[in-house]
Amino acid sequence: MKKIKAGIINVTGYAGVELARILWQHPDVELVSVTGRSAAGKKLGEVFPHLAVTGLTITAELEDHVDVVFSAMGHKVSAEVILPLYRKGVCVVDISADFRLKSPAQYPEWYSFDHPSPELLEKAVYGLPELHRKEIAKADLVANPGCYPTSAILALAPLVKHGLVETDLIVDSKSGVSGAGRTLTLPTHFAEQSDNVRAYSLSGHRHQPEIEQELALLDNSGRLQVTFVPHVVPLTRGIISTCYANIKPGKLTGGQEELDQVYQQFYRGEPFTRVVQEPPETKHTWGSNLCLVYPVLKPKTGKVVAIGVIDNLVKGAAGQAVQNMNIMFGFPETAGIDALPVYP
Amino acid sequence: MKKIKAGIINVTGYAGVELARILWQHPDVELVSVTGRSAAGKKLGEVFPHLAVTGLTITAELEDHVDVVFSAMGHKVSAEVILPLYRKGVCVVDISADFRLKSPAQYPEWYSFDHPSPELLEKAVYGLPELHRKEIAKADLVANPGCYPTSAILALAPLVKHGLVETDLIVDSKSGVSGAGRTLTLPTHFAEQSDNVRAYSLSGHRHQPEIEQELALLDNSGRLQVTFVPHVVPLTRGIISTCYANIKPGKLTGGQEELDQVYQQFYRGEPFTRVVQEPPETKHTWGSNLCLVYPVLKPKTGKVVAIGVIDNLVKGAAGQAVQNMNIMFGFPETAGIDALPVYP
Amino acid sequence: MKKIKAGIINVTGYAGVELARILWQHPDVELVSVTGRSAAGKKLGEVFPHLAVTGLTITAELEDHVDVVFSAMGHKVSAEVILPLYRKGVCVVDISADFRLKSPAQYPEWYSFDHPSPELLEKAVYGLPELHRKEIAKADLVANPGCYPTSAILALAPLVKHGLVETDLIVDSKSGVSGAGRTLTLPTHFAEQSDNVRAYSLSGHRHQPEIEQELALLDNSGRLQVTFVPHVVPLTRGIISTCYANIKPGKLTGGQEELDQVYQQFYRGEPFTRVVQEPPETKHTWGSNLCLVYPVLKPKTGKVVAIGVIDNLVKGAAGQAVQNMNIMFGFPETAGIDALPVYP
Amino acid sequence: MKKIKAGIINVTGYAGVELARILWQHPDVELVSVTGRSAAGKKLGEVFPHLAVTGLTITAELEDHVDVVFSAMGHKVSAEVILPLYRKGVCVVDISADFRLKSPAQYPEWYSFDHPSPELLEKAVYGLPELHRKEIAKADLVANPGCYPTSAILALAPLVKHGLVETDLIVDSKSGVSGAGRTLTLPTHFAEQSDNVRAYSLSGHRHQPEIEQELALLDNSGRLQVTFVPHVVPLTRGIISTCYANIKPGKLTGGQEELDQVYQQFYRGEPFTRVVQEPPETKHTWGSNLCLVYPVLKPKTGKVVAIGVIDNLVKGAAGQAVQNMNIMFGFPETAGIDALPVYP
Repeated sequence: MKKIKAGIINVTGYAGVELARILWQHPDVELVSVTGRSAAGKKLGEVFPHLAVTGLTITAELEDHVDVVFSAMGHKVSAEVILPLYRKGVCVVDISADFRLKSPAQYPEWYSFDHPSPELLEKAVYGLPELHRKEIAKADLVANPGCYPTSAILALAPLVKHGLVETDLIVDSKSGVSGAGRTLTLPTHFAEQSDNVRAYSLSGHRHQPEIEQELALLDNSGRLQVTFVPHVVPLTRGIISTCYANIKPGKLTGGQEELDQVYQQFYRGEPFTRVVQEPPETKHTWGSNLCLVYPVLKPKTGKVVAIGVIDNLVKGAAGQAVQNMNIMFGFPETAGIDALPVYP
Repeated sequence: MKKIKAGIINVTGYAGVELARILWQHPDVELVSVTGRSAAGKKLGEVFPHLAVTGLTITAELEDHVDVVFSAMGHKVSAEVILPLYRKGVCVVDISADFRLKSPAQYPEWYSFDHPSPELLEKAVYGLPELHRKEIAKADLVANPGCYPTSAILALAPLVKHGLVETDLIVDSKSGVSGAGRTLTLPTHFAEQSDNVRAYSLSGHRHQPEIEQELALLDNSGRLQVTFVPHVVPLTRGIISTCYANIKPGKLTGGQEELDQVYQQFYRGEPFTRVVQEPPETKHTWGSNLCLVYPVLKPKTGKVVAIGVIDNLVKGAAGQAVQNMNIMFGFPETAGIDALPVYP
Repeated sequence: MKKIKAGIINVTGYAGVELARILWQHPDVELVSVTGRSAAGKKLGEVFPHLAVTGLTITAELEDHVDVVFSAMGHKVSAEVILPLYRKGVCVVDISADFRLKSPAQYPEWYSFDHPSPELLEKAVYGLPELHRKEIAKADLVANPGCYPTSAILALAPLVKHGLVETDLIVDSKSGVSGAGRTLTLPTHFAEQSDNVRAYSLSGHRHQPEIEQELALLDNSGRLQVTFVPHVVPLTRGIISTCYANIKPGKLTGGQEELDQVYQQFYRGEPFTRVVQEPPETKHTWGSNLCLVYPVLKPKTGKVVAIGVIDNLVKGAAGQAVQNMNIMFGFPETAGIDALPVYP
Repeated sequence: MKKIKAGIINVTGYAGVELARILWQHPDVELVSVTGRSAAGKKLGEVFPHLAVTGLTITAELEDHVDVVFSAMGHKVSAEVILPLYRKGVCVVDISADFRLKSPAQYPEWYSFDHPSPELLEKAVYGLPELHRKEIAKADLVANPGCYPTSAILALAPLVKHGLVETDLIVDSKSGVSGAGRTLTLPTHFAEQSDNVRAYSLSGHRHQPEIEQELALLDNSGRLQVTFVPHVVPLTRGIISTCYANIKPGKLTGGQEELDQVYQQFYRGEPFTRVVQEPPETKHTWGSNLCLVYPVLKPKTGKVVAIGVIDNLVKGAAGQAVQNMNIMFGFPETAGIDALPVYP
């Protein structure tokens, strides 16, 4: 089969460089162009020595002849850069948040800008294959999910879908530091972040409406709401989201066994999302596209605790983007992203 | 003022060695005896080079002439070792869980042993000065609180005391690895724990009844319950407990300002517990006896998120034990534990 | 091409489990058997969740029908386990030290045992492809190099081979903690090793005779000696060896340019060892079989500083073992070990 | 005794804030003024929550009435800020390099500026108490040593002073990341520095002339030279310098025992520098002013390996600065810096 040509916009961030690593090794893809304005003209291997073998040069603008483009640009700018390409017929996977939310009104509220093409929000598909595989297969514009939402939605989806819990949900997430990106900040300065845990965005984090949107699609109450508190923990890669939900009266009377069955059935056949029997650890996913889901019944307090674990740069960003591309182009869904986790 | 003589039982664990560090530098205490069975006969400085200057030798049994003894033994054994000393009139601060729970029935349930002297459970004082300072002052047997409970109770106490929230509480805690002790285990092996976050004790952790007991004392509903999920994060010292509670109808209508006032007033004059205005970080307490408390109102979802942060070996163990001793003996409450945090 | 069948002896250590990860993904190999005495009967995925997909069960003894066996046993035991297999005609790659040293007298001196089959020491090939590729291709018993020696020998070989430096060499190595293995010890307990650097084996480390043996083969002075000091640094994977040598009078008068050319030429065509132009970092090799070599001329003090960097579990153990197998069986040398480093 | 008044210039770097922590707790000092241009007007506790209790406000310029000033400014600017104060009679401890080197010619060579007051270079005292205690006692301008030099000079001084080794010395240092300061850089970004070791400044580091200058003062050969290679390791605090020297013919025939005696005698009575019998670890000095020195004879290769370990922010910066102040003002040398290390 002929390889498709792919490009990456903004290869110099962590999602971008992880895309380059994965796409370079993808059997059905030829990575032909990588952009990055500040590093334009440099070899990719100068900026990222682990990719020296690619021989690629970073350019200011994308080369024209690509079949698919991945945007790892920040929000707002991403839409601006993507739209002309999209209109020329290039398939797009957008790692930014610019096409994730369906309601145009949420962009000024959460991202402080008016969406430049609100008519595309309905057309764009939220790229969580476990929930939207069929639509992704037909899409030409996929909004790649956020890292926190990936872990939280996959942990909670079976509960919400089957109406087993009340819809007042709590998501307490702990993320590795790469999730904060490659831009220098004091909180991500090594001496400040090492040996340190901190909560942040207590007044509201942009991933909250995204979690709510996708879970609400599975719910018929119209009242689903999420209290989301993210934390940064001192590791490079990995997210663990610990989610709390109240069991609805009369539900889950079959106990932990019923709960396990609900999850096992929900994720049956999924190539990357696994329901596990022991508490999952972030390191069990390092460098891989896996999502580990672990539901626990707490009968005494009438709760389900559901844990979702991913590598934030792979299933939480670049790996899932490639999974979406695989589905869009009819490649085997695991092509290029089937590497086992690197442990320890 | 004449110094009192102090001894430490089981100095070779992390709580014990932290006690030795603090007591050695305490202006009103002479540390005269440290025990540790496996290391008996060794110099303390052989086992812990940072304490070489003490010149102390570890012995199998405690020397007799102490005014106060700190037990850093494990549960069950601690009570056995303490009781003869206590009966001879030695003041006791027990770091183990053996005198924390008031109900004898909880020992077989949570700790798998029958309490050897249940009659003392009522007499022992739970050594959280912010809640029990007056009783501690009169006590001769103090049960030093667990590390997780210290952070969680101090985060939630003002809410429960004032009846501002429903009593179905969630505590999501993240602890540094020293909380798991100095005993070698695979999960605390560096290569496994580095770069890793994991939840554990999902089926129930021993600190849950302790949190419930102390918060229930502040509540008059009789229905207070806690869902507690601990996690281990890759740092040596520090706990952050993120607590979730539903606001009672009609309460906290004054918003964040009212919430802040409730906390500020509750902890007014406390030498170690501070209500902060920015999200606290574990590293802000490293090596100190501080507890940082941060309450946040989430009006949209009707919740309070209350965060408590401590150094698990200081305010969560050895430092609080010395704070209790200071209160018991009438020393200035901050004596020996007033060192500023070491940052970064 | 038909796949060969491979087995791993002692899969439960870090070299063993890394072999399992790599061999499972190798296009020319079927991993059919993994042993581990303490874990016999368990699923590999129970012990190492990241390998759950393999479905393999750990057995006490190796299954018979393998074409190649990798021993990740400790020294002394490794030879005992390997020899019967070797005599039956199974190709062997031994990760232990049991066939690395050519002189039988060094085993009692450095490893405290008499070698059980000294006649095989000459026959075994030291599996550093950069130096012994042709012999490896013909070998049926390969002694896989130690992690420190791999990094140090590759850093120094061009200098010694060309007689550019005096033969009184210094190797100062810094290793990640996984190099100490999976056996629990106090120094590798997270709370002790985190935030900590320590030197060890100051009186002599077993890898020193190995480094000396291989460099002496490139030297004709007969007086080559190495002062080797290893350190442990708080990271999971990676070794950086900083090597110091005095320039011989009249040599390297062409300066840094000449030095670079010597190295570039020495490693021309090597698939994994790269001479780099900027100081290499251990993280640039994470999860890959790369060795990065960086030579620097210090004309003022008449020295060359040569740095070698590897992932100790890949090029320093399992990856190099597979590289050796590829050469032995005529597979492409990079088969199964061509994954790019995972960064960051 | 009346407290002296102290000020800190540039409190917002890591040396400055560590000075604030120590001086605030010093029994003989009143910390009255802290400056920091970018943060001027902010509370010290806003920038560094662990110092909230001080109540100090950061100002743009130093308040006038101080008896001693500590400059934690960068080089070149430090001299400019210090000189007017010095000329007004304020005692000065300069943490920067501006008065460390005796030869004015070295400033343009290593620091790229012409020294503004070369006449003061002779007058300034290099503030390493173990070598210059008497001069420090009489000084009013002390140049506080660099972090690497402190560890390396103290490790090597006894050997050089007694003429036991050749004067072609190698210093291989490993430093925690706080040594790189609080200014944001990509190499000190958490995701890049975590799990990573790197060598740097291979072409020459500014601390090399400083090490050479001080060791040359102990040597009478006139030919002393140092090859110095610094590395960054992923921990916040701590330096370990592993130093290599060739034994002079006929020296140290008494073996390790003689070597130990030389060191023990050299550092007899020193309050902070200890000769240890086991390999020292950086964590054994965390938060303290200790320097641990460990000399090892390697008779087979004719070398001494001498290891020096410090906390780079304390004995390597702020703690040693306060030690110098104590000596200058006749306070007990350990006043304010006698805290035991925080371990683990």
